[in-house]
Amino acid sequence: MASFTYRRQLTIEWGQCDPAGIVFNSRFFEIFDAGTWHMFEVVLGVKPHELAGAFGIIGIPLVDARANFMKPIKFGDVVEMTSRVSEFRRSSFDIEHRLSVGGELAVEGGETRVWASRSKDDPEKIGGIAIPPEIIAKFERA
Amino acid sequence: MASFTYRRQLTIEWGQCDPAGIVFNSRFFEIFDAGTWHMFEVVLGVKPHELAGAFGIIGIPLVDARANFMKPIKFGDVVEMTSRVSEFRRSSFDIEHRLSVGGELAVEGGETRVWASRSKDDPEKIGGIAIPPEIIAKFERA
Amino acid sequence: MASFTYRRQLTIEWGQCDPAGIVFNSRFFEIFDAGTWHMFEVVLGVKPHELAGAFGIIGIPLVDARANFMKPIKFGDVVEMTSRVSEFRRSSFDIEHRLSVGGELAVEGGETRVWASRSKDDPEKIGGIAIPPEIIAKFERA
Amino acid sequence: MASFTYRRQLTIEWGQCDPAGIVFNSRFFEIFDAGTWHMFEVVLGVKPHELAGAFGIIGIPLVDARANFMKPIKFGDVVEMTSRVSEFRRSSFDIEHRLSVGGELAVEGGETRVWASRSKDDPEKIGGIAIPPEIIAKFERA
Repeated sequence: MASFTYRRQLTIEWGQCDPAGIVFNSRFFEIFDAGTWHMFEVVLGVKPHELAGAFGIIGIPLVDARANFMKPIKFGDVVEMTSRVSEFRRSSFDIEHRLSVGGELAVEGGETRVWASRSKDDPEKIGGIAIPPEIIAKFERA
Repeated sequence: MASFTYRRQLTIEWGQCDPAGIVFNSRFFEIFDAGTWHMFEVVLGVKPHELAGAFGIIGIPLVDARANFMKPIKFGDVVEMTSRVSEFRRSSFDIEHRLSVGGELAVEGGETRVWASRSKDDPEKIGGIAIPPEIIAKFERA
Repeated sequence: MASFTYRRQLTIEWGQCDPAGIVFNSRFFEIFDAGTWHMFEVVLGVKPHELAGAFGIIGIPLVDARANFMKPIKFGDVVEMTSRVSEFRRSSFDIEHRLSVGGELAVEGGETRVWASRSKDDPEKIGGIAIPPEIIAKFERA
Repeated sequence: MASFTYRRQLTIEWGQCDPAGIVFNSRFFEIFDAGTWHMFEVVLGVKPHELAGAFGIIGIPLVDARANFMKPIKFGDVVEMTSRVSEFRRSSFDIEHRLSVGGELAVEGGETRVWASRSKDDPEKIGGIAIPPEIIAKFERA
């Protein structure tokens, strides 16, 4: 899919690094999560905290996350990050994050999320609902 | 006040430490917060996530936090922690946390929290209400 | 492989949860990391911060991490966690973490780590070296 | 002291918030820490990870941190933050952080840090050394 690619630059903070002087793995998953919210804001034109209300969903919960750490990223490193939806399915979608330092790919991450709503029959239950085509179209056009 | 002292032992994890190999400051505030919830559970006999419901409050929000770092605490260090309510006022109270390693005091922390409820007139407003004397008595007797 | 299974119980803290009231995804990767260190301590009889020195390595850096979130885990939930090495290869190995609440599997995680050392020719370079058979044997016997 | 005031804008991420939907207290101490590093970079013209090397110190370790939470800050809130050195002493200094949302002061934080070096007699010992007057002058002129 020719999907919109969201670009962001970030500088690694002291508090994100571990005793080896490199970013602690869990911090990358915070960075991925924030990247996804920002991308949705840019593409859909809706503030992250208004996303659920704007589209009648409870949110876009994460069902799968993964990362491949190719090169260590250190305190003070300037990271170029790209995020894009690599695939839309009926009610779920995949996001791909890439973090590079000095032009070299250092970390690749992936998230699978669900376009989720409460069940009408049982509000305790949360499940995926069909992603509206106009949402998908916005990512293609963006 | 002769208040109950809650004791806990914890071992410092890799992910809690920074490039200097010592616990990153924000992690102590996570540790203090958890210590307060655990102490309340032990003294009041109510699970943390049931505290609000059990006492008709919305929670015990933090209004002030502070820490004094006397000695660095490192990855793998075994920490002895004590937590106690050092003062109850009408609707707020102070908690004191002390972390020692090898018998030496390393970090001293303090929290001020409010026994908080929604205003009956304006549910958007949250404010302190009088702490029930039986709550205070439990901390003295514990 | 009939590998040792490390068991641990943990209770979810307030500070590990997000506005949906469930554990924020990055926190699971902290939990996995700590689980791996603890398992190594139990099996090898070496404190985490002494692991590198004891075996002449620089550590066991993570090259891949992944998680599958099947059921949300909430504030106050008591989690039963198991961790085991699911495969040893020449210089890398896979760890499998499973978190259950009330007997139901909620999160499955995986890590791939390297038994890593500095290159003798270029100390700036870090790479995998062969995992000693006695290390692998300890995980099988444990 | 007419000290330089460093200004920064940040937007609160989902992962920084707790089940009450507001920033979890420890996150503010991460924000303060990053604010201090950024301010030093701007004033001294030295990248955070080069600070120690550039001035012959081991760093600017934190000895005291504190925060006063006046108004909750929520997911999606745009925060205006100011940081300044409020006092320089011989070998330690105080930093004051202020976070406002919509023009209203929401959180006030303070840090006390030491201009620290290893002892010449005992490299295991770390202690404060006199802050060079040219460093202080840069904060006044900035």
